Amino acid sequence: MSEKTSLYTKRHTGAHILATAIYYMFPEAQFGVGPTTENGFYYDVLLPRTLIPEDLAILESKMKEIIKSNLLVERSEMDIDEAIEHFRQAGQMLKVELLQDLKTHGTTNFTEIYGYDEANSTQDKADVQTVSVYKIGNFVDLCRGPHIESTGQIDSQAFILDSISASYFRGDQNRESMQRVYGILFNSKKELKEFLHNREEAKKRDHRVLGKSLGLFTFSELVGSGLPLYTPAGTTLKNNIAGLLRQISKKYGSQEVSIPHIAKKELYEISGHAQKFSEELFIVKGHYKQEFALKPANCPHHTQLFASEPRSYRDLPIRYIESTMQYRDEKPGQIGGLTRTRGFTVDDGHTFLAVNQIKDEVSLLIKTIADFYTSFGLWENKWVSLSVRDYGDLTKYTGIAEDWDKAEQMLEEIAKESGLAAKRCEGEAALYGPKLDFMFYDALGNERQLATIQLDFATPKRFELEYIDEAGNTQTPVIIHRAILGSYERFLAILIEHYAGRFPYWLAPVQVNVLSVNDSVEVLDYIDFIKQILDNVVLSSPLKYNELRYNLDLSSESLGKKIRNSELQKVPVTIIVGPKDVEAKQVSIRTHSGESKVSLDELQEFLESFE
Amino acid sequence: MSEKTSLYTKRHTGAHILATAIYYMFPEAQFGVGPTTENGFYYDVLLPRTLIPEDLAILESKMKEIIKSNLLVERSEMDIDEAIEHFRQAGQMLKVELLQDLKTHGTTNFTEIYGYDEANSTQDKADVQTVSVYKIGNFVDLCRGPHIESTGQIDSQAFILDSISASYFRGDQNRESMQRVYGILFNSKKELKEFLHNREEAKKRDHRVLGKSLGLFTFSELVGSGLPLYTPAGTTLKNNIAGLLRQISKKYGSQEVSIPHIAKKELYEISGHAQKFSEELFIVKGHYKQEFALKPANCPHHTQLFASEPRSYRDLPIRYIESTMQYRDEKPGQIGGLTRTRGFTVDDGHTFLAVNQIKDEVSLLIKTIADFYTSFGLWENKWVSLSVRDYGDLTKYTGIAEDWDKAEQMLEEIAKESGLAAKRCEGEAALYGPKLDFMFYDALGNERQLATIQLDFATPKRFELEYIDEAGNTQTPVIIHRAILGSYERFLAILIEHYAGRFPYWLAPVQVNVLSVNDSVEVLDYIDFIKQILDNVVLSSPLKYNELRYNLDLSSESLGKKIRNSELQKVPVTIIVGPKDVEAKQVSIRTHSGESKVSLDELQEFLESFE
Repeated sequence: MSEKTSLYTKRHTGAHILATAIYYMFPEAQFGVGPTTENGFYYDVLLPRTLIPEDLAILESKMKEIIKSNLLVERSEMDIDEAIEHFRQAGQMLKVELLQDLKTHGTTNFTEIYGYDEANSTQDKADVQTVSVYKIGNFVDLCRGPHIESTGQIDSQAFILDSISASYFRGDQNRESMQRVYGILFNSKKELKEFLHNREEAKKRDHRVLGKSLGLFTFSELVGSGLPLYTPAGTTLKNNIAGLLRQISKKYGSQEVSIPHIAKKELYEISGHAQKFSEELFIVKGHYKQEFALKPANCPHHTQLFASEPRSYRDLPIRYIESTMQYRDEKPGQIGGLTRTRGFTVDDGHTFLAVNQIKDEVSLLIKTIADFYTSFGLWENKWVSLSVRDYGDLTKYTGIAEDWDKAEQMLEEIAKESGLAAKRCEGEAALYGPKLDFMFYDALGNERQLATIQLDFATPKRFELEYIDEAGNTQTPVIIHRAILGSYERFLAILIEHYAGRFPYWLAPVQVNVLSVNDSVEVLDYIDFIKQILDNVVLSSPLKYNELRYNLDLSSESLGKKIRNSELQKVPVTIIVGPKDVEAKQVSIRTHSGESKVSLDELQEFLESFE
Repeated sequence: MSEKTSLYTKRHTGAHILATAIYYMFPEAQFGVGPTTENGFYYDVLLPRTLIPEDLAILESKMKEIIKSNLLVERSEMDIDEAIEHFRQAGQMLKVELLQDLKTHGTTNFTEIYGYDEANSTQDKADVQTVSVYKIGNFVDLCRGPHIESTGQIDSQAFILDSISASYFRGDQNRESMQRVYGILFNSKKELKEFLHNREEAKKRDHRVLGKSLGLFTFSELVGSGLPLYTPAGTTLKNNIAGLLRQISKKYGSQEVSIPHIAKKELYEISGHAQKFSEELFIVKGHYKQEFALKPANCPHHTQLFASEPRSYRDLPIRYIESTMQYRDEKPGQIGGLTRTRGFTVDDGHTFLAVNQIKDEVSLLIKTIADFYTSFGLWENKWVSLSVRDYGDLTKYTGIAEDWDKAEQMLEEIAKESGLAAKRCEGEAALYGPKLDFMFYDALGNERQLATIQLDFATPKRFELEYIDEAGNTQTPVIIHRAILGSYERFLAILIEHYAGRFPYWLAPVQVNVLSVNDSVEVLDYIDFIKQILDNVVLSSPLKYNELRYNLDLSSESLGKKIRNSELQKVPVTIIVGPKDVEAKQVSIRTHSGESKVSLDELQEFLESFE
C-alpha cells in the first residue's frame, strides 16, 4: 500500500463509522464495499427499505455519538476460513462472497470493478491465508486498513453525510441493487465549510451549466462526444478573444497564417507526432492509396511554410501565428465539457530564429502574454515554471548538451530580467528543449497550465530547415513554440468560471440590451432613433475599433420579465425606454452599479466609455 | 459519333493539312495520330531530325498554300486488308500496326491511351472489315472523319502552328519517341487574335504564377496535393475577404457560429452526404470503435445547432453563417492550383425559416450578394440561373410537388422584383429544392458559378427539425442554403486573375510600403516619426475600422531596387523618404496615378481617403 495522508485514514475510518451507524439503525443490513473518495467516503448497503434524505440526519447524529464516545478501532487477524464462517454467521453474505473469491482467486477483484485502489480492502494476492478485520463497538468489518486508533480522532464537526444514490453490487447490473451513502470528511470544520462553499460556488460557475444557460455551446449525439458546436453567442466570445490575441500578437510582429487540418501521415512521422500521439492520432483514409492524419499539432505544417522559400538571416525572426482546430482521439471516459475535448482550437505560434535572437524573442513573448492576461485581470494569478532537464537522466533529451546549457541559462536570465520569479522545475522540460510554463489559478484555486514558451532545437533538424547567415553559410534555425492561451475550449471554460458568466463589457456576446416598456408607436419610433445612435458607437478598448453588439427586445412581454431575462443573460448594460423617456429625450440605463438616466446627447459617449 | 460543330471539323481537317505539309517537307515521315484539341489540333510524327522553331514557319506557309489551293478532301473506303497493304507500301508502319490491332482486337485502343474521343479515328468495334481513308493532294491518311469538303473552307489567316513537344507512340515510354506539332485554329482571324490575346493575359494573370511571385500560398509534398498553405500575405487577403463577408452578412441579421471539422459518419448518413459523396468522403478512424468523417458540407452540423434548443416562430428566421474548411477527396489528376483542392474554405450559411418568410429572406440574400460583389466591381459581370426541376422526370426530386410549385414561383417573382433578369434553367434544381445560381465571368470571360441561394424542404425532415407556430402546433422549418463567394480558394483564384495581382488598396495584403532613400540617422529618425502617423491611420471603406497594413524597407539597397521590389509586390501606395523630405516635412508618394509630394500634415488624411 502506498503512503497515505492521515486525512485518507480518517476518511477510511469514516466509512466504517457510517457502516457501524447503519448497522445500529438497520441490524439486518447487508454490507458491500465502503471506500474513500476524493473528499470523503461512501458505503454500499442492502437495506430493508429505501433511504430518504431525513435518514441522513439520523445516521449523522449516530456517527457523531460514535465519534464522541471515542471508541477504539480494533484490528485483528483471522484465518480466511474462520473469517468466512464469522461473516456467514453474521448474515453478511456479500462479504462471504468476497472472501471466497479471495480464497479461490487470490483477489476479490472489486478494485477493478469500482476503479479505485485498496477499497475497504483485500489482502495481497500472495497472502490469502489470513485476512484482517476491524471492530468498532459491536460492528466487525473486513478490511486491510489502516485506520485511526479511536473514533475520537475525527472532528465530529468536520464531516457530513452528503447524498444517497443507487449502485449495484460489484458494479454489475445483474447483481443486487444497493444504496450508496456518500460522506464528506475533512480535518476541521473550517476546511469542511470551505469545501462546501467552494462546491456551491463551483456549481454556480460551472462552465457546463453556464454554457447551457447562457447558450454558448452545445454537443450533439450525432456529431459525437468531445466535439463542441459554438452558438452565435459562444462564437462571438471566441472571436473576441481571437481578435484580442491577433491584435496583441501583431503588435509584436507576428504574422497570421492559415493551414489545412490534415496532412499526409508522413509529415507526422518526420515530426515525431505519429509516434508520440499514436493512441490519439485520428487516421484519415483517402481513396487514392494515400493515408492522411488529422493534425494533432501545427508545427509540422508551419515548418512547410518556412521551407517554401529560401530564407536569409535578414528575414529572421519569422513569427507565424494561427488560431486553428486540432484533433486528438481522447478516451471517451476522459471527455467532459470544454476542459477535455476531441477537437480543440489552439492559438498556436512558431517563431523561426537564430540562436542569438532567442533572448529578445522570449522577452517579447513574455510581454505578449502579460498584455493578454492583464486584459482579463488574470496576470497576477499565476506562477511560472522554468522547466529544465532531469539531470539524473540526460539521455532522454534530443539535441546537443551545449545548446541545452545555453538555452536553460538564457531562459533563466530572461525570466529574472522580466521579473517573473520563475521556479526551476527539473525534469519538466520538453524532449526537444527547455521551456517557460505559465500556471494560472482558476476561480476555484485550481492550477491550470495555459501559456507556454518552448525552445526547440530538434524539429528544425528533422525537417532540414535552413537559412543563410551573414557569412553566407547555411545554418539551422531554432523554433520557439508558443501558446498564449493554449486551447480556446479550456480557456473559455476557465473564463466562464472566472467571471461566473458575467463577462466584462468589451467581451460580452451581447453588450447592450434595449427593452421597450410598451410597444406603442411613439416608443418604437423613439427606439428606431436610438438604434441609429447605437449603430454609430465604435468601441476601442481592449478590442480596438469594434462595433457595439446590441439586442432589441420590443416584445409585448411585461417589462419585469424582460429585465429578468436580460439579467439572466448577464448583459452588462440594459437600456430601458418608456413613454416618459420619449418626451424627456433620455433613456434609463441599468448596469452592475445601479440604474440611472442618460440623455440622448450623452448616450453615445456613455456607451463608448463604459467599462 | 456525336454531333460536332463545323469548327471541330475544320480543326480535324487542319491536322490532316499539317500532316500533308509534313509529308511534303519530309517524305520519309512516319505518322502517328493527329487529333483535335480544345483550340486546334496536333499531329505526332517520327522525323529524320528534330524540328526547330523556324520549321514551324515553313510548315505554316506550306499549309497556307494547301488551303489557298482549295484541294478536295476525298473520302474513300477500303477493305481492312487492302488498307494494311496500302500503308505498308507507303512505309507507314505505325498506321499498319494500328490497322492490325483494329483487325485483331476490334479497336486500336489509342483513344484510351490518349484520353480523347474519336481521335484520327478508328471504326466501330462491330465493323472492322472496312475502314475509311481521306486524301489531300497525294497524301492519304487513315481516318473515320468527318472532314470539310475542301481545304479552302479554312481561313488561312485563322490558324497558327503553336509549338513542338515530345511524345511517345501510343503514350508508351518504351515505344518510339515522336515529335508533336501543335496548331491553333479558329473560324476567323479575329477569333484567333482574341484567343491569343486572352492566352497572353491569362499567363500574366495565372493565379498559380501570381500566387508564387506575390507569395500568397504554397503547397508541400509532405502535406499533400490539393491542400494549400496560406502565407501571411495570403492569409491577410483571406481574412480581409472574410471580414467583408462577416460585415455585410451581419448587417442583414446573420449570426456567426463555429463547428468542428469532423462528425460521426451517422450524421452524414442521415443528411445523405455519405451516399452522395461516397467517392469523395474522407473517413476518419477513431480508436474507440467510432467512425467519423471529415465534413464534406456544413448543413448537417448547423441542423444540430438549430436542434439544440426548442424553437418558436418568434425565433425565426435563424441565420447561421460560418467560414470554415471542408474536405473532399478529389482525384489526384483533377487537383490544380486553388481552383480544385481537397481542402477548401467555404462561406457557408443556413437560414432556418417558415415558408411564409422565404420571399423576404431571398430578397435579403440577393442584397447581401449584390453588396459583396459590388465591393469587387464584379456585380455587373454575371447572369443568374433560376434553376428549376426537369419536368420530364419529376421522380428524381424529393419533397412535395406543391411545395416545389410554390417555391419555384416565389423564386421567379423575387428574381424579377430584384431586377435580376434570371434565366429559367430546367433540370438545374438541386434534389431538395429550386435555387438561384449566380454565374460570374472571370478575367478571361470564363463562366464561374459562385453565389447560390438554395431552398431545401428535405433536410429539415431528415433531421426532424421543428418549431412551434403561432397556433402552438409543431411545424417543420425550411432551410435556405446560401453561399456568397462559394469557396475562398476558387474565389481567390478568380480575384487574383481579375486584378492581375494588383489588389485594390482596401484589400491588398500590404497597403503601403515605406522606402528610405538612404539609412542616415536623420532619415531613419524621420521615418520613426512617420511610423507614428501610419499607426494612427484608421481605414473605413469597404472594410470598416481596420488599421493600415504597412511595411518598412530601410535596408541599404539602392532606391531603384527598392522601388522595383515594391512594384513587383504590386503594393498600392509607396512612400519614399529622402534627406530633402526631412527638411521640407513631406514625403514622396507613388501610386498607380503617378508620383507626388504630400506634406506630413496631410499624410494621415491622404492615407485614410485613398482609393
